[in-house]
Amino acid sequence: MPRRRPHPAPSSRTRVRRVHERAVYDRPTIDGVLDAGLVAHLGFVHEGQPFVIPTLQARVDDHVYVHGSAASRTLRQLGEGVPACLTVTLLDGIVLARSVFEHSMNYRSVVVLGVASPIGDVEEKLVALEAFTEKLLPGRWAEARTPTRKELKATSVLRMPLDEVSAKIRSGGPDDGDSPDAELDVWAGHLPLVVTALDPVPDVGLRPGTVVPPGLRPYRRAGLVG
Amino acid sequence: MPRRRPHPAPSSRTRVRRVHERAVYDRPTIDGVLDAGLVAHLGFVHEGQPFVIPTLQARVDDHVYVHGSAASRTLRQLGEGVPACLTVTLLDGIVLARSVFEHSMNYRSVVVLGVASPIGDVEEKLVALEAFTEKLLPGRWAEARTPTRKELKATSVLRMPLDEVSAKIRSGGPDDGDSPDAELDVWAGHLPLVVTALDPVPDVGLRPGTVVPPGLRPYRRAGLVG
Repeated sequence: MPRRRPHPAPSSRTRVRRVHERAVYDRPTIDGVLDAGLVAHLGFVHEGQPFVIPTLQARVDDHVYVHGSAASRTLRQLGEGVPACLTVTLLDGIVLARSVFEHSMNYRSVVVLGVASPIGDVEEKLVALEAFTEKLLPGRWAEARTPTRKELKATSVLRMPLDEVSAKIRSGGPDDGDSPDAELDVWAGHLPLVVTALDPVPDVGLRPGTVVPPGLRPYRRAGLVG
Repeated sequence: MPRRRPHPAPSSRTRVRRVHERAVYDRPTIDGVLDAGLVAHLGFVHEGQPFVIPTLQARVDDHVYVHGSAASRTLRQLGEGVPACLTVTLLDGIVLARSVFEHSMNYRSVVVLGVASPIGDVEEKLVALEAFTEKLLPGRWAEARTPTRKELKATSVLRMPLDEVSAKIRSGGPDDGDSPDAELDVWAGHLPLVVTALDPVPDVGLRPGTVVPPGLRPYRRAGLVG
């Protein structure tokens, strides 16, 4: 595994241009967003058309990993070394200003630019699959049946380096508190949104007496409440 | 506004190829996902590099709208008539199978391919801004100060037609109930995830006595629980 690099400077492509006071480039913040998010939106171009697909992502050190079926057209195209963009967004709330114009959302997002490389090495593939599994449910890698050689072959894992990466964060209330709108009798503030896990639903075919994993009661991970 | 079209057949580009039993093309389902989601991930290509940015989206009839600052580089590039991809994903849960291999996520996602067109017509722009505002908080358009001519000019609104569009949906428990893995003593099932609104946080500068909007207590909209 490559060692953790210090905060890279933004490239001309990842430098956030609009509302640049919201831009963040330090790795602890970026890693926090990637680690709290489950889903990435992965963009690539095929025959001039951009495609954006949702996919589970997991970070290990200085790379972010995605995976899927080895038969997937998307993963095959991505694995050919084309430019890609991986974006993770956490929606933290709704911002209600006195004016329609100043309405906004609170969010944390990370954009990774680069080329996705397919992982051939079985050891690294297993490290990534463990990261995906542990991300879904901490402790799950030790509970579930690990992949067979055939299953490993049927799974494509790709990684992107966290070289060209930036975050954008908005938090707090509306920005119109020092404008003439502040005199209006319109309620202003923000509404925090959180992701919560409900009670686990056992599979219909579950063998009687199967122990519920300790990680499920309650289910806790970064990015989720409750 | 153009009239609602009946379900379009999938194009060769929007036809879902992997796990195609998860694919949906009917407009009521597609509209339900778009209307329940706040954020879209919008993909476009600039100098060969795909970019994927999170942005608020709102559907009106047969179009999905996005907006932002008229000074935004992204919106200017998109408004030049380049191919785009708008994806909305709702994460509904985590699927825990007996094997690592069968772990999955429950989700509903919609992919719209097409070209984003800038809206010049002020009336249509206002319709879109009303849709964004009402999506953030039902009833808000009537409460908040409506946009001035200057604010309208500073806001770019783009729309994409719901012509090339498809949805992909996964729900329920793991798929390993009829495999040899079903004999394993490993808990299997799924964990529903929901988005919940916490209590509204008033702006620090709020005038005393300002009435809390009825839509905030409790806050309810498609896609959110609580």
